[in-house]
Amino acid sequence: MVSQRLYTLMAQADLDGLVSTSFENVAYLSGAVIITQRMIPERLAAVVLPLHGDPTLVVCMIEEAQARRDSRIPDIRGYVEFAQSPIDAIAQVIREKGLDHSTLGIEMKVLSAHYFLELKAALPNAQFKPIDQMLDRVRAVKSPQEIERLQRAALATDGAIRAAYEHAKPGTTDKDVADYMANAIQASGADSVAFLVLGAGANAALGHPSATNVPLQVGDIVRCDVGGYYSGYYSDLARTAVVGHASPEQKKIYSNLWAIHEKLIGSARVGVRAQDLFFTCRDEFETRGMPFTFPHLGHSLGLGLHEYPILSPFDDTVLEEGMVLAIEPVYKNGGPIFHVEDIIQVTPQGGQVLSRSADWSELFVIGG
Amino acid sequence: MVSQRLYTLMAQADLDGLVSTSFENVAYLSGAVIITQRMIPERLAAVVLPLHGDPTLVVCMIEEAQARRDSRIPDIRGYVEFAQSPIDAIAQVIREKGLDHSTLGIEMKVLSAHYFLELKAALPNAQFKPIDQMLDRVRAVKSPQEIERLQRAALATDGAIRAAYEHAKPGTTDKDVADYMANAIQASGADSVAFLVLGAGANAALGHPSATNVPLQVGDIVRCDVGGYYSGYYSDLARTAVVGHASPEQKKIYSNLWAIHEKLIGSARVGVRAQDLFFTCRDEFETRGMPFTFPHLGHSLGLGLHEYPILSPFDDTVLEEGMVLAIEPVYKNGGPIFHVEDIIQVTPQGGQVLSRSADWSELFVIGG
Repeated sequence: MVSQRLYTLMAQADLDGLVSTSFENVAYLSGAVIITQRMIPERLAAVVLPLHGDPTLVVCMIEEAQARRDSRIPDIRGYVEFAQSPIDAIAQVIREKGLDHSTLGIEMKVLSAHYFLELKAALPNAQFKPIDQMLDRVRAVKSPQEIERLQRAALATDGAIRAAYEHAKPGTTDKDVADYMANAIQASGADSVAFLVLGAGANAALGHPSATNVPLQVGDIVRCDVGGYYSGYYSDLARTAVVGHASPEQKKIYSNLWAIHEKLIGSARVGVRAQDLFFTCRDEFETRGMPFTFPHLGHSLGLGLHEYPILSPFDDTVLEEGMVLAIEPVYKNGGPIFHVEDIIQVTPQGGQVLSRSADWSELFVIGG
Repeated sequence: MVSQRLYTLMAQADLDGLVSTSFENVAYLSGAVIITQRMIPERLAAVVLPLHGDPTLVVCMIEEAQARRDSRIPDIRGYVEFAQSPIDAIAQVIREKGLDHSTLGIEMKVLSAHYFLELKAALPNAQFKPIDQMLDRVRAVKSPQEIERLQRAALATDGAIRAAYEHAKPGTTDKDVADYMANAIQASGADSVAFLVLGAGANAALGHPSATNVPLQVGDIVRCDVGGYYSGYYSDLARTAVVGHASPEQKKIYSNLWAIHEKLIGSARVGVRAQDLFFTCRDEFETRGMPFTFPHLGHSLGLGLHEYPILSPFDDTVLEEGMVLAIEPVYKNGGPIFHVEDIIQVTPQGGQVLSRSADWSELFVIGG
């Protein structure tokens, strides 16, 4: 059910209610995972949550049967797409709850400018305040069930990556490795592959390449950054390998990167600030004479891929027990990118890794 | 390059320039497919396109190398995420182009309320007008290359569905069928599976179920609605099958639905209105005594999943040569949903099917 923490924050912010419209928060508040919110964003789903009184879930009629099956919110209203704007349906619920002269929280970073202006016009006497941060904060501390789910997802994806790297040989195409990995993720219990970035050879220098059907050559770096989608929750892992055998320079880059990665994971303790991990990382790169080029070194994840906190220089969030972070230092120096990423749980002793199905401490050799 | 039609429409709408921020329009205007726009919407990418003068592509630094590889727009500006808001970077480009006292088109249905207010504050002397419809219209008529790409995608996905249904037997789980299908889509040349809805038995009555690991039983209806993502373009097909053997009632429902489907495809001629297809469909359902329950019977597709025109009662778009439509009548009467969907190209003689790798005119029998 809706956490007491959210009600406390709503009261502190003088909100009489809120209207949540993001995929993540609708899933979080209602339990209903409405996947078309991702692909067809104009087909709004919304939770109207009063500070006092019962919440209502508004969904497109097409989703209604499924919402009734999955939602913890029993009051569900379906609207007929194209016949009625979703904002009409939402405004009607707000009026019914007597909140049309009230202060309402909305997700300004998610709601489109079009729908925002329509909502303001429909409820001219309501006041709107952004609640993006408030909801981010509530979702940042994961429940034990969420942590278990994220761990299962991360381990499953890690195993799929490992299996694909073990399947590959010099001469295998990057597309074949990517397909093998996608199939293994699918077979690991994912609802679907959320994203699959895999670059080999020249493509390993790009941020988010797709496979291009080139054969792996001895000495190529292969980098993947992959996520599956497991009952609404993301996995997100990056693993770097080399084809055939590793040069001394490649070994050195990887072992430096891995040492930094382990140090960062160890530093992810309760009480540390998100930005401190970033600064630690920058110091480590500089000490080792490695170029430090990235704007963040990780992020939380859950129902969303990039959740709060973000491990950037600007995020001063104090880490709490129950936060889950993707830590992902990147070595980028013009040539192939070296990238490692693990999912960890914040504990008083440091980060506890949730995502390793195998040992990745040395650069994995494909066909080796 | 940017079509002359867009410049004409911009001039007619008294726009001095436009700022496009959707995944679809950034890909369309620049040629750069920035997949993280779908997953991390706050990481804006934008095309700033003056009516007179050269366009600029603004992307997060993480995407810059790839944008330089793929973009037809040579002027590319990277911003550093978290250090600078993407709106800052966009506003700076607008000022450089001398457009900060001008009338600018923006995608109101895509840009978040948060970024919209930030853009207005950064450019207090600019006027903003919605251009969602204008861009929808420009993208509605596909080029021959786009049609070929959509056909290849549709045929590949259709073959994957067929293969999965041929693989299945009574006792196979719905999850196994879904995984087989996903693997086949991946192997068919897709960058990834975009969505995979598969419901069997009781789940076949839901709008967008995920597979739940239940074995297929003789007599079950299996419905899938599946899309792959091929170099930025969608496929989208629905196919219905029965397990073991079809009852006379199931056969009758399917043959009625298929007859309506074929009639609708034949009616998708140049000069017909989108809404007329909807009304034809409604009449056909009523004539045959079938409940007509859906708010639209299809949509265009391309870089987006639901593109303009939409085959709803409210869309009076006159169909033009080169439009591509997903036509998808649905039978829904409390029990399992029967759903067929094909991709067609509008011609003067009617719709030309782009999506059939096999004959689906009779209800497919799994294990039959």
